[in-house]
Amino acid sequence: MGEIKKVVLAYSGGLDTSVIVKWLQDKYGCEVITYTADLGQNEDLEPIKEKALKVGASKAYVEDVREEFLNEYVMKAFKFGALYEGKYPLATALGRPLITKKMIEIAQKEGADAIAHGSTGKGNDQVRFDVSAVALKPDIKVIAPVRDWELKSRDEEIEYAKKHGIPVPVTKDKPYSIDRNIWGLSVEAGPLEDPYHEPDEEIYSFTKNPLEAPDEPEYVEIEFEKGIPVAIDGKRLNIVDLVNKANEIAGRHGVGRIDMVENRLVGIKSREIYEAPAAVLLLEAKRSLDELILDRESLHLRDQLAIKYAELVYYGYWFCELREALDAFADKLNERATGTVKVKLYKGKATAVARKSPYAIYSKELATYDPGDTFNHKYGEAFCYIWGLPLRVAAEVKNK
Amino acid sequence: MGEIKKVVLAYSGGLDTSVIVKWLQDKYGCEVITYTADLGQNEDLEPIKEKALKVGASKAYVEDVREEFLNEYVMKAFKFGALYEGKYPLATALGRPLITKKMIEIAQKEGADAIAHGSTGKGNDQVRFDVSAVALKPDIKVIAPVRDWELKSRDEEIEYAKKHGIPVPVTKDKPYSIDRNIWGLSVEAGPLEDPYHEPDEEIYSFTKNPLEAPDEPEYVEIEFEKGIPVAIDGKRLNIVDLVNKANEIAGRHGVGRIDMVENRLVGIKSREIYEAPAAVLLLEAKRSLDELILDRESLHLRDQLAIKYAELVYYGYWFCELREALDAFADKLNERATGTVKVKLYKGKATAVARKSPYAIYSKELATYDPGDTFNHKYGEAFCYIWGLPLRVAAEVKNK
Amino acid sequence: MGEIKKVVLAYSGGLDTSVIVKWLQDKYGCEVITYTADLGQNEDLEPIKEKALKVGASKAYVEDVREEFLNEYVMKAFKFGALYEGKYPLATALGRPLITKKMIEIAQKEGADAIAHGSTGKGNDQVRFDVSAVALKPDIKVIAPVRDWELKSRDEEIEYAKKHGIPVPVTKDKPYSIDRNIWGLSVEAGPLEDPYHEPDEEIYSFTKNPLEAPDEPEYVEIEFEKGIPVAIDGKRLNIVDLVNKANEIAGRHGVGRIDMVENRLVGIKSREIYEAPAAVLLLEAKRSLDELILDRESLHLRDQLAIKYAELVYYGYWFCELREALDAFADKLNERATGTVKVKLYKGKATAVARKSPYAIYSKELATYDPGDTFNHKYGEAFCYIWGLPLRVAAEVKNK
Amino acid sequence: MGEIKKVVLAYSGGLDTSVIVKWLQDKYGCEVITYTADLGQNEDLEPIKEKALKVGASKAYVEDVREEFLNEYVMKAFKFGALYEGKYPLATALGRPLITKKMIEIAQKEGADAIAHGSTGKGNDQVRFDVSAVALKPDIKVIAPVRDWELKSRDEEIEYAKKHGIPVPVTKDKPYSIDRNIWGLSVEAGPLEDPYHEPDEEIYSFTKNPLEAPDEPEYVEIEFEKGIPVAIDGKRLNIVDLVNKANEIAGRHGVGRIDMVENRLVGIKSREIYEAPAAVLLLEAKRSLDELILDRESLHLRDQLAIKYAELVYYGYWFCELREALDAFADKLNERATGTVKVKLYKGKATAVARKSPYAIYSKELATYDPGDTFNHKYGEAFCYIWGLPLRVAAEVKNK
Repeated sequence: MGEIKKVVLAYSGGLDTSVIVKWLQDKYGCEVITYTADLGQNEDLEPIKEKALKVGASKAYVEDVREEFLNEYVMKAFKFGALYEGKYPLATALGRPLITKKMIEIAQKEGADAIAHGSTGKGNDQVRFDVSAVALKPDIKVIAPVRDWELKSRDEEIEYAKKHGIPVPVTKDKPYSIDRNIWGLSVEAGPLEDPYHEPDEEIYSFTKNPLEAPDEPEYVEIEFEKGIPVAIDGKRLNIVDLVNKANEIAGRHGVGRIDMVENRLVGIKSREIYEAPAAVLLLEAKRSLDELILDRESLHLRDQLAIKYAELVYYGYWFCELREALDAFADKLNERATGTVKVKLYKGKATAVARKSPYAIYSKELATYDPGDTFNHKYGEAFCYIWGLPLRVAAEVKNK
Repeated sequence: MGEIKKVVLAYSGGLDTSVIVKWLQDKYGCEVITYTADLGQNEDLEPIKEKALKVGASKAYVEDVREEFLNEYVMKAFKFGALYEGKYPLATALGRPLITKKMIEIAQKEGADAIAHGSTGKGNDQVRFDVSAVALKPDIKVIAPVRDWELKSRDEEIEYAKKHGIPVPVTKDKPYSIDRNIWGLSVEAGPLEDPYHEPDEEIYSFTKNPLEAPDEPEYVEIEFEKGIPVAIDGKRLNIVDLVNKANEIAGRHGVGRIDMVENRLVGIKSREIYEAPAAVLLLEAKRSLDELILDRESLHLRDQLAIKYAELVYYGYWFCELREALDAFADKLNERATGTVKVKLYKGKATAVARKSPYAIYSKELATYDPGDTFNHKYGEAFCYIWGLPLRVAAEVKNK
Repeated sequence: MGEIKKVVLAYSGGLDTSVIVKWLQDKYGCEVITYTADLGQNEDLEPIKEKALKVGASKAYVEDVREEFLNEYVMKAFKFGALYEGKYPLATALGRPLITKKMIEIAQKEGADAIAHGSTGKGNDQVRFDVSAVALKPDIKVIAPVRDWELKSRDEEIEYAKKHGIPVPVTKDKPYSIDRNIWGLSVEAGPLEDPYHEPDEEIYSFTKNPLEAPDEPEYVEIEFEKGIPVAIDGKRLNIVDLVNKANEIAGRHGVGRIDMVENRLVGIKSREIYEAPAAVLLLEAKRSLDELILDRESLHLRDQLAIKYAELVYYGYWFCELREALDAFADKLNERATGTVKVKLYKGKATAVARKSPYAIYSKELATYDPGDTFNHKYGEAFCYIWGLPLRVAAEVKNK
Repeated sequence: MGEIKKVVLAYSGGLDTSVIVKWLQDKYGCEVITYTADLGQNEDLEPIKEKALKVGASKAYVEDVREEFLNEYVMKAFKFGALYEGKYPLATALGRPLITKKMIEIAQKEGADAIAHGSTGKGNDQVRFDVSAVALKPDIKVIAPVRDWELKSRDEEIEYAKKHGIPVPVTKDKPYSIDRNIWGLSVEAGPLEDPYHEPDEEIYSFTKNPLEAPDEPEYVEIEFEKGIPVAIDGKRLNIVDLVNKANEIAGRHGVGRIDMVENRLVGIKSREIYEAPAAVLLLEAKRSLDELILDRESLHLRDQLAIKYAELVYYGYWFCELREALDAFADKLNERATGTVKVKLYKGKATAVARKSPYAIYSKELATYDPGDTFNHKYGEAFCYIWGLPLRVAAEVKNK
């Protein structure tokens, strides 16, 4: 790794990253600057800043990046309708590149020669940090102490913390590993590691238990412009407020819970629980709008490419040309994605029930079976003839 | 069309196909044999048979083909998890090729020179009938009277019926066009032609209103063998009974309603409501099992190909080599799809909450963040280095 | 079709379209305006104009559109490396939408209510004309007399021509159907309809017989900027001159002959011979440049999407949003496609033998097996471990 | 790595693997058994066996596996027409899994606890060996000394060899790294590391210089059964003789040279020269047959999946379910791939000029423009109308 003089560390305020502050100083004799981004994780950042300084950081940056996160990261994936393995809205995966970018910027400003993060060696996040870093600044060093250090267990880590005067939480940890931002929350580990164990209700914090959700459905109208949600129930909101509002509405109806076994990039399957109320609500609405405005070939290819797009994001390839090329593709297909979708929320489910758009290519006159339709029925036979020709000839060959 | 002496007609017992019996006789002076398949549409076939003979058919076949339908058609698409445009479980689309095959067999047995169906010139079903027919017997003639005839409106059709002694329903028709089989039901037309109109509750007949569904969730365990559901709650059932049971359970919880604007093959968008309680329940369970047994590359490619598979089915290309080749692909990936999935049903939603399989490639020892894990964390750094290399080099080029 | 007062006809000067001038007048009592585009088909347009007026056109437009053709049509497909079914550079397919667009513009200017073309009912070109027309002006009428008329054979057509004073070629027609523009030439029909018949040398007009090509190879250097060829052998040329030059150089070495059985959109297979010397030379060079500048994921996805892009072009879907979205994708991936490729031409074959680019992401320091390499070999084991993990776990399951 | 008692080493007879024999003994104090497969690399295996024993192997296996290689590995990829990045016929990539499988079998028979190979840490082969090994026997250890050892340069390696009495080639090495088997040969390194350097003629050993190839073209007829070549010029040959024969014929016409910059799995681009005369000849013929027998949708999807198939092979994922599933897909599409293709060989190029098959779905009666065609031209208009409908409606929306 060579000599390290100054490191910018992604700091959460938790035990791991607090221990890392000290460990980096011990190991490299270096200065440690912490960086904490507000991605909407619903925590007060001021105490985190204070704690960073207390455990030894020479400087502690905290920053609200929610708007940039939503506009420049989340909404790009949103325009594609990208879900990893058909389910995961990619909240954490989308946040890591932004955090890395910010850390690189601070590293350059502060003259740091490395960045550091608290990811383990078997998860996806290390890839997102490491790859984003070298994609932005190939000569930066990236340190992931948890991959390297000699602390073999939670107990050893606590002992290390106590020895160095790092505050240790008095209550016993919940057995879960949790990450949260404005676009969603992930829970893993503990009892969830048995895929045949139904998640305990206690793990959910972003959504109400559907059993306790209101007994009356609620309707919400989402308005889109060029693929981006811009208003809820007629009220125009900036993106941060809009997503917060969507989280609140969907969350209180228990909407947004996802339970899956997913394939990590590093070749391991893991059981994940996600809560993403706004994401699930808004994606349901957006899909419904897309159905109205996209022609068949566009929709089908977009759906195929969304699988690829989600792979790129999940695999840590945010800062690559291919992602930008796919964004250019999606931007074009979202030019007409303007309209309104009515979604019904009830007991854990969001269902689009009505959608309209000035750019709809739905034509009632064509679709209707009423006498006044404008479609020449006689064309049907001809179309079927030509459409079936390859199979007809194949059958003739087979019959010979 | 040349001379037609004998026609096998797909007969539903409704006004349209009853009028067609007479119209074919009028137009071609031919003998008309009707064929009515029991695909699980929940109707008594005996009265349909009698009606066919009464309106002039020389012979009326009725047949229970539910088992063949499920085993040879539905389950193939099921193994792929194929949904058209991400939503539609293809119930009608899967039924048409089977009906066509049966009609062709009867045509051969009876020496008929044509088959006939009641589809219009602007829908998908005409394609499925016409293309399936020529794919099986290229020299068969296919007649679709509704595409050709001079009856311009419902009123003219009723007048024609009355003139020819064909029973006309006394009650006014519901404005909807409905098709139902054991795998699902579709509703279109009428008020649904306005995509901003929420479906009226009256259109649903297969699923309970989620608002009136039980207030307690129900858990159901689905057992699969090689991708096929074989037992519910520990009770082994043949496929027909199993799907009926699944329809009943899911239906009473309001599970299986789908509201979409879809792209027909003939270039028209149409608004469709589907009810597919068993399909939605079983597909949810199957997906969850797949997550446990398929490696990443297999799952991702399977998901991509499922889009293609659904297209083939929807577009009427059932009897083609490519569909068979895709089935061979899916069969291989379902060899280990044996296991049990627990699904929670509640107020319109089915959620897989637990899954297990003797062939799971999930490994708790690898996935866990516990100290006793078997994964070498130090490998993480090396993997990230190599994984990020193309982006690193690209960045170096950009910085130059 | 309703009343037709004025038609703009795509006019080639040949017998078919000359007869069509008269037939349109006869059939509709309408005025006929001809349009002839110079797409580089290597014909003098003035005599064609005169002939149009002579056979009855009220006005005859001729226009050199080669530059627009290359810049706005050919180069877009070129940036994708799109070949239909892996072989056909789409020359005719790319020309039809441009011709249609021009005819629509004239129709609007001249107040014509229809356009007409000479395509048959079983080829691809009718689709390209018809679909391009309605995509640009949905209320335009499109007439394809050859699909409709009563002239059942060549002889009847000649008789009709003689009767109406239309000049009939004195020499017997070659049995081939030929279309040519600056991007390529297609030959079909006649003896070629037997796919086991080797093409006779007489059909080739754009390329020298490789057996008679120079005995010495020739090297040519192609220079690209953002994916577009801009110079040959160091000499900057505008796109028309550059492609002409490339045709000449490649053609004299017998480069650019393609022999294939292809699938038409209308469900028919046909045997086609293409000559596309410039296309084959420039695509070979461009591919080689792409290898140097595109990362793996980008190249592989681009190659997949090129199949789709070629479909869109071949199927007549030029004027659609999806094509534009794919162009946006390709534009992004061509931003760094600047560099020089040396191609060796010899006896029918063009082979890129050297390539360089300021934006190459090829790194000799990484690639080399020399001692001075910058790659940490120890990382290899770790990468292989993680890469192989899913297969390892799968094997463990199988062995259990 | 733990204790190693016995290792099976993939042994080529060259300096590297000879040094490895000794190094393994030194490092682990273990017994070394060598394995050398005859994949058609055109070397006498007996001297290699003797050398192995001489440098210290306790046992030396040599084995002719050409038939298994061609039947069980090469022909599977061949049925897909799989080429990595559109060019590379995968010769080495297909050989590695077979060698690994054989070594694993010997390891089991001999009670060895590890296998070893001579690959470096930056190439593709290490991945193929390592991943194939764990996919077959997850508890096997895999040693790649070149990744680990302390020999930093060629000179140090030679010194080590001399010290241990390992014969060192007296002539200075060519600067190239070469691998050859019956399906092809690869050359890399040395002057080739400059992608703007044209390959020197001296590197080619499998194909004649096209400039010195016969001045007369040669025709060769390849006969296929279910996708597999079975006869050349009417003479039935077993697969080994057939491929040898194809290599000889194509090679003497200079056919089969490939020059590319490719993307290795480990994120590095490298410049590679391949010689694959038989592969290029047979793939050209096979493609031409496929054009005759595959319908459009099958061919297009097959071409897309061939990209994926080549990735799997190239990336070392031979022994995985997905590859088997893709094989099942390809097997189906090759059931009718029976027929004969005539290929013209001339000065470096192989061109299919004629093809026939009893299962061709080419229909001259449909394709012809002759009067006697069986296609209803009037259907063309209807087909175009329906095909263009989405674009028509989109245009109407735009015009509003």
